[in-house]
Amino acid sequence: MSVDDLIRQQRTAEATVTLTTGGEPLANAEVTVAQTGHRFLFGSTGFEFMPLANDEIHGEERAEMEKLADKWLALFNFATLPFYWGRFEPERGRPDTARVLATARWFADRGVALKGHPLCWHTVQPDWLLSLSNDEILKAQAARTRREVTDFRGLIDTWDAINEAVIMPVFENGENGITRICRANGRIATVRMAFETARESNPNAFLLLNDFDMSTAFECLIEGVLAAGIKIDAIGLQSHMHQGYWGEERTLEIIDRFARYGLPLHFTETTIVSGHVMPAEIVDLNDYQVPDWPTTPDGEARQADEIVRHYKTLLSQPSVEAMTYWDLTDRAWLGAPAGMVRRDFSPKPSYEAMLGLIKGDWWLSPTKMTTDDEGRIRLRGFLGDYEVGVAERSASFRLNRVGAAAVEVILAESARD
Amino acid sequence: MSVDDLIRQQRTAEATVTLTTGGEPLANAEVTVAQTGHRFLFGSTGFEFMPLANDEIHGEERAEMEKLADKWLALFNFATLPFYWGRFEPERGRPDTARVLATARWFADRGVALKGHPLCWHTVQPDWLLSLSNDEILKAQAARTRREVTDFRGLIDTWDAINEAVIMPVFENGENGITRICRANGRIATVRMAFETARESNPNAFLLLNDFDMSTAFECLIEGVLAAGIKIDAIGLQSHMHQGYWGEERTLEIIDRFARYGLPLHFTETTIVSGHVMPAEIVDLNDYQVPDWPTTPDGEARQADEIVRHYKTLLSQPSVEAMTYWDLTDRAWLGAPAGMVRRDFSPKPSYEAMLGLIKGDWWLSPTKMTTDDEGRIRLRGFLGDYEVGVAERSASFRLNRVGAAAVEVILAESARD
Repeated sequence: MSVDDLIRQQRTAEATVTLTTGGEPLANAEVTVAQTGHRFLFGSTGFEFMPLANDEIHGEERAEMEKLADKWLALFNFATLPFYWGRFEPERGRPDTARVLATARWFADRGVALKGHPLCWHTVQPDWLLSLSNDEILKAQAARTRREVTDFRGLIDTWDAINEAVIMPVFENGENGITRICRANGRIATVRMAFETARESNPNAFLLLNDFDMSTAFECLIEGVLAAGIKIDAIGLQSHMHQGYWGEERTLEIIDRFARYGLPLHFTETTIVSGHVMPAEIVDLNDYQVPDWPTTPDGEARQADEIVRHYKTLLSQPSVEAMTYWDLTDRAWLGAPAGMVRRDFSPKPSYEAMLGLIKGDWWLSPTKMTTDDEGRIRLRGFLGDYEVGVAERSASFRLNRVGAAAVEVILAESARD
Repeated sequence: MSVDDLIRQQRTAEATVTLTTGGEPLANAEVTVAQTGHRFLFGSTGFEFMPLANDEIHGEERAEMEKLADKWLALFNFATLPFYWGRFEPERGRPDTARVLATARWFADRGVALKGHPLCWHTVQPDWLLSLSNDEILKAQAARTRREVTDFRGLIDTWDAINEAVIMPVFENGENGITRICRANGRIATVRMAFETARESNPNAFLLLNDFDMSTAFECLIEGVLAAGIKIDAIGLQSHMHQGYWGEERTLEIIDRFARYGLPLHFTETTIVSGHVMPAEIVDLNDYQVPDWPTTPDGEARQADEIVRHYKTLLSQPSVEAMTYWDLTDRAWLGAPAGMVRRDFSPKPSYEAMLGLIKGDWWLSPTKMTTDDEGRIRLRGFLGDYEVGVAERSASFRLNRVGAAAVEVILAESARD
């Protein structure tokens, strides 16, 4: 089966939608049906919109960011917001809650689902943590988790509860308090603390175990965490590809290995560059520092091809429920030309290609249909939200499961009736 | 502190031995003290002595193997015997128990401790396993574990309960039944089955979790296994170095990471070649097939240096309780010139060097001492077994713990008194 056929099989419903109004079928009527949202989480980082959401920029700069926001919102429905402890609370007791809250509301007002990243990690730590005892660090970490999860409850209910626990106790790039407690207590106790503290603070939270390690190490950690009875909601796979696109075979092999735990997979940090790729011998991506890493026409053509192939591979596999692209623009981590738009915010071919899929091939634009004698229309559509209407009367419905679906939609009686 | 000082600190006792005979101190007497055994497990494979132990060879061949046995027994006190399922029971229901039992007795009669390797592994599987259902494979594996552990109880009480569980469920070099059950049930359930079945069959068994994977993956597996409440007695680190000696820094870093679980470490399969090293790009060592892999004079000098350094590094670390060299001769796995004796059984410099340590620098040869007025002698010796005597009267004692020790030894009254 071709990848497009697999995507159709795994991601669409064949719906019979029965429209009624005033208790009667809306028979033989011309209606307009349109998709309004995807169920699949097409994500990206939302960090760059904090100044806009907080009214910190004005004039031309603001106008430019608003245009970028339009591009972001046309493509994505899921934003990752930053909770790096060292930046969120550089001075103890003065967290950046208000600014991130404003940004979360800005996205939520635009129909975007949110994830907080990360609640517990050994990198980007506040300096003040280092002077504490292990016991105090553990308490501070738990208190910070409780505070963030509680403060953002309802707005952000999805969290990377812990990040990179595989390497956490043996991380050697700079002393930090989290490595200290993880080394002392072990990974599983640390994962338990991260998940249980977050879940106590928000029983509705959807919590990820996120890692960059795609090897057997992460499998072993997951199996240990599950055997220890810790409830995790999804497995987060970072999938930065600064060193080159994985290709379909490796991607499918990874999905196959991690899907066998029966948990949803989120590809949480996907990066594919449109310039030269980072040399293979770099182990910690942060170690690669270059003065200039340009995007090139050839690189952009290759990137568009690879991004499309990567999205298609993920959507062809039912275990994958989310993919977050890291980041939309080239003004990003490591200066890498990994964006789908350039530094001047002009779209690259990858942006156009993905827009053509997410809001084109995989999308139902407003379409006129005529109901039959019993008020029914039939459509095949990607899972997500839809609107159907006649003139000013409209109602929404949702396609939630692949395969055949019967949907009943009640249209309000027209004011003109 | 130098490595030799560390070894002295970690491996020797400073003993005051009080000798009495007929209830009185044996004062001002000249006695002879001699070490008879090491507490540290200096191990090697014992596979090659199965024909000798089973009287399957005669004449010159036998004489040659007997000479090799002398070399083996001069150096080692701990033998690993083979329980590879595919070779041990190629025809279902006809295990090679008798031959291995005879070999185990042969070693035990010579004061050698034994380990069985391995009870559960995905490689060297019997063909007949593949036609079974997963449930039947699981039962067959449990039954085979129970059978071997029971049949060898008292002779072999130390077992590699499971081998290479990190890669077990995703092993791809040939279909096999153990990968199937491990993939279906998960690593931790498979490790639990392996350990609990063995322990039920021999409550005195000392059981290892053995792996070649020295990365965070094995750490994660260990943490998961411990969190799941599975009792393991030691961590087995394979440490084949066909691709080059690790060096002190890497060895100490590995010991540091694995010692933090508070369990004894066994270096279970140590190999250092005296010819060219295997290219670094080989991932599965079994994939390296060469028609001839000669030992060379330069290689032998380098190997002697590296083997001595490696043994010294391990003995300097208190967590390490055993090191098994794989194998004594060059007639060995992969045809690698990894032996301490050549194909013609002549000793390499590494053999002479290790004999000089194990039975020289780290050993107390028969030594005359004179007791004081209260019948005491003082000695500093490596942990292990000792004999002390006057004329035909002798008694044994054991130094079991590092540091100061007070030992009382009762000599039988002399027939001539």
